[in-house]
Amino acid sequence: MSRIVIALGGNALGSTAQEQRDCIDAATPSLVGLIAQGHEIIVSHGNGPQVGAINLAFDIAARHSDKVTAMDLPECTAMSQGYIGYHLQQGLAKELHRVGMPWHVASVVTQVEVAADDPAFDRPTKPIGAFYDQATAAAQMAERPGLVMVEDSGRGWRRVVASPRPVGIVERDSILNLLDHEFIVVACGGGGIPVVRDEDGDLHGVAAVIDKDFASATLAKAVGAQYLFVLTAVDRVAVDFGTPQQRDLAELDLATAQRYVDEGQFGAGSMLPKVQAAMEFAASGPGRRAVICSLEKAPLAMRGESGTVVHA
Amino acid sequence: MSRIVIALGGNALGSTAQEQRDCIDAATPSLVGLIAQGHEIIVSHGNGPQVGAINLAFDIAARHSDKVTAMDLPECTAMSQGYIGYHLQQGLAKELHRVGMPWHVASVVTQVEVAADDPAFDRPTKPIGAFYDQATAAAQMAERPGLVMVEDSGRGWRRVVASPRPVGIVERDSILNLLDHEFIVVACGGGGIPVVRDEDGDLHGVAAVIDKDFASATLAKAVGAQYLFVLTAVDRVAVDFGTPQQRDLAELDLATAQRYVDEGQFGAGSMLPKVQAAMEFAASGPGRRAVICSLEKAPLAMRGESGTVVHA
Repeated sequence: MSRIVIALGGNALGSTAQEQRDCIDAATPSLVGLIAQGHEIIVSHGNGPQVGAINLAFDIAARHSDKVTAMDLPECTAMSQGYIGYHLQQGLAKELHRVGMPWHVASVVTQVEVAADDPAFDRPTKPIGAFYDQATAAAQMAERPGLVMVEDSGRGWRRVVASPRPVGIVERDSILNLLDHEFIVVACGGGGIPVVRDEDGDLHGVAAVIDKDFASATLAKAVGAQYLFVLTAVDRVAVDFGTPQQRDLAELDLATAQRYVDEGQFGAGSMLPKVQAAMEFAASGPGRRAVICSLEKAPLAMRGESGTVVHA
Repeated sequence: MSRIVIALGGNALGSTAQEQRDCIDAATPSLVGLIAQGHEIIVSHGNGPQVGAINLAFDIAARHSDKVTAMDLPECTAMSQGYIGYHLQQGLAKELHRVGMPWHVASVVTQVEVAADDPAFDRPTKPIGAFYDQATAAAQMAERPGLVMVEDSGRGWRRVVASPRPVGIVERDSILNLLDHEFIVVACGGGGIPVVRDEDGDLHGVAAVIDKDFASATLAKAVGAQYLFVLTAVDRVAVDFGTPQQRDLAELDLATAQRYVDEGQFGAGSMLPKVQAAMEFAASGPGRRAVICSLEKAPLAMRGESGTVVHA
């Protein structure tokens, strides 16, 4: 039996509650299929569209009503973990029940520690929330120290936040404890709620977004997983993608992967972080393997019949 | 060592993120004080102002932008559990660290089962969300079957939902498992996400609000707690409240409590459900005691020096 962390994309969860339920219903046969093969799974998930919608809802409502105040990002991410975790619990339980498996599902509200001196804080890049005109953006920046807004491709001004690297999973022990008792655990939603440690050792939320694939790699290391599954829209990682020379890769060792990264083979906002997270996990210990594959073919990929295995 | 479920009021958590953090910082010495006395605690909490703000934010934003759609109540409650659970985790960890105690804190996204044929569904009474004019209310009711809006004391039309009785804690095993390993567990936020079971045995969210004191009593029974603490704004339950004859009660047996309930001694929206939840728990098994007290004096109440003990 292997322990597997599965990183599900936030975009694969739709953008309304009904879409999310439908997407999860479509995803659960693959996830439960891995358990049926005898493995233990931890589901982590992205939250891009979801945390965007929550943040935007509070932003817009705060501008139109004095009954609502804007909500900062760590709290919006915490909300998205409750929202997505609830649907995953319900959807996974339904599929487990359908196939007659007695497992329980638990969602753990997860904080992920980042370093206060992560260089990412000096150059925030992740756009979030609503578009504003220049005057409103300037006024907001004057009002809230630390808020950075930039002009976004002619569409208006928008807030950007840092995307620091995860350094630790605060709720590691809760997750391990549930895993050890045959629970399917949903954790690290949206890359986790980013927190920094002060000099007293106490944690504080920071307005940032942690890449969910890097957070999932950190989680997989922290819980001693043998596999990290990074789900994506394609069946396999490819080089020379979209050209007549395109080659889909069944496996990738670390040296070759690094060479492709250096060649610029992978898109910065899409396949690159997935490959890098996979490399980080595969490099972290003997026998650790990362698989980049499509959701539908995850059980096939576990048997080596689909996906790209990244290994040392 | 006793196992204690503590029901914290949603109103005691403030109405913005900063207020919530401050309220929790004020609450944690009492909560951790109970652990320091050698007890195991499960924190449940209300979410009235929080779920109201989340629901309202989505309502208002959906009316002003096509980028946001309204969010239904079960999902809003799930969000509030993530939001409040996150702050409780951080606040409790800070206080535990301050007093040098090694406990962990985990928040479990909790569904609470209600009966589909609960008579409460025939007469929804709990107001939620924004006020509308009559024409908008009529249009919304025509558009969404099952939506009930009523005129609220001259302030406009507002949605009302049912407040059914809890019948079971879906995530009972997750909670028990964490408790058995020395975790402080945050569970049943906002009375839990209300779900009903269909004929296949699968769960579905329903637009309803479960009273958090009744949910906490159900939780306390489900986890085999010895104590249910129902926190309120006063130190003790009183009869002839607010009259020259007011008497504060140090203890209440079930027969006397029922007599006072029948006399109408307790306010329907305030002390009555607390007394009834306390009675339900105290009546549920030998040695089970419910304590109604103020947050600040909870450790004193545990020693019998404050609060009202309800017992069989």
